[in-house]
Amino acid sequence: MNKALLKSLLTTNNPFNSTDEVVAWIERRNREVEVRVEEVPFADLKGWHFEGETGNLVHDSGKFFSIVGIDVRTNTGYEQRWTQPIINQPEVGYLGIICKEFDGVLYFLLQAKIEPGNVNCVQLSPTLQATRSNYTQVHGGKKPAYLGCFQNAKPDQIILDQLQSEQGSRFLRKRNRNIIIRVDNDIVVGEDFCWLTLGQIKALLRRDNTVNMDTRTVLSGLRLEGKEEGSASFATDLFASERAKAGVMTLDEILHRLSELKLRYELVVEKMPLKDVTDWTVTSMEIVHKDRKYFRVLGVNVTIENREVAKWCQPIVQPLQEGLCVLFAKKIKGVLHFLLQAKVECGNFDVVEFAPTIQCLTGDFRKVAKPPTFVREFLDGSIRGRMLFDTKQSEEGGRFYHEQNRNVVMLLDENVELADRDNFIWLTLGQIKEFLRFNNYLNIQVRSLIASLQYV
Amino acid sequence: MNKALLKSLLTTNNPFNSTDEVVAWIERRNREVEVRVEEVPFADLKGWHFEGETGNLVHDSGKFFSIVGIDVRTNTGYEQRWTQPIINQPEVGYLGIICKEFDGVLYFLLQAKIEPGNVNCVQLSPTLQATRSNYTQVHGGKKPAYLGCFQNAKPDQIILDQLQSEQGSRFLRKRNRNIIIRVDNDIVVGEDFCWLTLGQIKALLRRDNTVNMDTRTVLSGLRLEGKEEGSASFATDLFASERAKAGVMTLDEILHRLSELKLRYELVVEKMPLKDVTDWTVTSMEIVHKDRKYFRVLGVNVTIENREVAKWCQPIVQPLQEGLCVLFAKKIKGVLHFLLQAKVECGNFDVVEFAPTIQCLTGDFRKVAKPPTFVREFLDGSIRGRMLFDTKQSEEGGRFYHEQNRNVVMLLDENVELADRDNFIWLTLGQIKEFLRFNNYLNIQVRSLIASLQYV
Repeated sequence: MNKALLKSLLTTNNPFNSTDEVVAWIERRNREVEVRVEEVPFADLKGWHFEGETGNLVHDSGKFFSIVGIDVRTNTGYEQRWTQPIINQPEVGYLGIICKEFDGVLYFLLQAKIEPGNVNCVQLSPTLQATRSNYTQVHGGKKPAYLGCFQNAKPDQIILDQLQSEQGSRFLRKRNRNIIIRVDNDIVVGEDFCWLTLGQIKALLRRDNTVNMDTRTVLSGLRLEGKEEGSASFATDLFASERAKAGVMTLDEILHRLSELKLRYELVVEKMPLKDVTDWTVTSMEIVHKDRKYFRVLGVNVTIENREVAKWCQPIVQPLQEGLCVLFAKKIKGVLHFLLQAKVECGNFDVVEFAPTIQCLTGDFRKVAKPPTFVREFLDGSIRGRMLFDTKQSEEGGRFYHEQNRNVVMLLDENVELADRDNFIWLTLGQIKEFLRFNNYLNIQVRSLIASLQYV
Repeated sequence: MNKALLKSLLTTNNPFNSTDEVVAWIERRNREVEVRVEEVPFADLKGWHFEGETGNLVHDSGKFFSIVGIDVRTNTGYEQRWTQPIINQPEVGYLGIICKEFDGVLYFLLQAKIEPGNVNCVQLSPTLQATRSNYTQVHGGKKPAYLGCFQNAKPDQIILDQLQSEQGSRFLRKRNRNIIIRVDNDIVVGEDFCWLTLGQIKALLRRDNTVNMDTRTVLSGLRLEGKEEGSASFATDLFASERAKAGVMTLDEILHRLSELKLRYELVVEKMPLKDVTDWTVTSMEIVHKDRKYFRVLGVNVTIENREVAKWCQPIVQPLQEGLCVLFAKKIKGVLHFLLQAKVECGNFDVVEFAPTIQCLTGDFRKVAKPPTFVREFLDGSIRGRMLFDTKQSEEGGRFYHEQNRNVVMLLDENVELADRDNFIWLTLGQIKEFLRFNNYLNIQVRSLIASLQYV
């Protein structure tokens, strides 16, 4: 691994700004910037309308995104056929981070960005976060800052460049380009921006709702193969796990298992008119399930000072329960492994993607009669281990309203034995990073947890 | 590489049956089996009907496949918006080959299989070739032979297991599981089956329309890293190229380029009712473009003796021109590279897939005013090189009627310099095989050409 990146990972101080100063700065931005998000009837949602024939909620330009219906058929899970509203945004957006070396340490340029759905208003987002509509300037706003740096980057500046999926049960096949570039020249640091080490970002990840989903997904792909032999710290285990290209299963065996599961599980998702979706109602104020569960779509009128456009209306999705994502880690034959779940989600590009060991986002896991695998044992403490990470993290505030989910990494005691299930697979960190290089293997929730792994 | 596989690759004799005997055997099967394929009006296509609301051509069971419309929008190519009929088969089929070692040489069990669309009636197909409808027995026919071997295979029997895409301009996101398993126990060799070495299969690939598309795609994924240093043969170059994990570009650079292209190219494909497709007509006998180009869909009444079901009706797609697929190879800095084209096709899972250097399948490349890149120079001989392979190969005869395309591998002279185009990328064979491990990177035409590479 690049020395400057390793130093960045292990550095939690910063001559420009300490982590505490960053927190104070975010809080100050929170106070300074005026943000108003008010719920309005769809009839007052300027620029948006329900399309006559389909009842879909669309932007007048036909761009941005829309709320449409889908008809889902599968042969796995609690329900095997249902219809639901979903965000349709069949395009690729940019999530880009610029980094630069100062005194042998790599720094990442993050932005204190406000999104209408954010719990804390301001969260640390990538340098560039732009939908296709943003970067092609459909809305006629300002050109996103730093876009040119990414568009003009030379191949040797690229540290990472991956297309990754977004939330599979909320987005129909949405993806973003996750990219990190390295610059050598001086660049102007905008007033909402600051340079942070990877160690600082990881420290900030321990705070609830501070580092946004987009930053987490971009950073998850970084390869961090250190060589700290001999020390007994967890970081050493992480480095060793990342170097391990084979674990309890080889990569070929895992690919074989995935092929098997993709053959076994059927997933047919057809777009349908929103007005024909059953069990959901469109009222003047919301699109909601008859049992008021899963999520609801509402219209908001947003006023934010420091965005490209200061005022706009948009639909936004609000979850109706808090979610839980847990990643089990365990040392097996001396090598740290992570237990991933090959999970079918209706918006997946490719039937199954790897999800965290536990992922409960779509229903209230406390209320269902038969909770998903490991949920009960995790909650009642009968699976024994040590919490390495336990924080509330927000989903993307541009589409999701006040959504926060509990993110946990738990190191199981070495004597904990879990029954084999063929859709749960132990991978080394090296194997996880190999899958991350290729598209659509790890879902956004597991990427978020991988980004949260703590080395210091 | 496994010794037995290497020996199989380099062995063109066979104690069970010489290559000539196999050819004679195929020809005998051709004579023995009675095959009648007659074109019938759609009204007489038993089991199929045009759905009232959509005009889609569907099977009465709702299974198998259907002919539907798609509405395609893209920002690249000759046309940027069109509608067309397409085969909709949103499922994963099985393409499986069994292999077994005899006297230190690996043999592959192929089937002399008849498909209604085959030019030569009988072609060598994988051991198992089954759609989901086949292997779940929707049609109530016999259980496909050898299915159990694949369903019960243990992980250590798996040589290869990949989900790969089918023809992107004809199939809407169809994929098959390409799998090779190795058995140690004796298995009964059915009367239509025979054991062949990889060397024999490659020799048979040199004959027109003899080895079917499905066999070619399955075999393309085999990793063949030999260690024949020192010899000057082309096989040595192939082995060296397969060992080369980096070429003129590294894998990360190629992934970066692909991300860039997937961001640049838009591809939005929406299913639509067949009856609303413009420029295409549905008559009593065919579904055809107003200019009678691209392809037509017709109905056939099929009678074949040695299939699970001896008589059936089905729609089938007939191309209206012969196609051309060419793969350029060239030694660059002493390492053999192949020039792949990152190509947008409307049925692609993921916007672009790697295609051969030249792929002309959808229109008549001789008649268009501005033929695709390299076509003119290839045809008039101004790009100089040596033909390594030049054969007519059939597309899958279960869906395509008498479709054969010219498949060429051409070794360019080392002093030929082609202008850089960012959607044409030189890859080593090792890089190609790495992409083949993961889903949806190489299209079926380029996989077919990779399978055709000759080592002897």
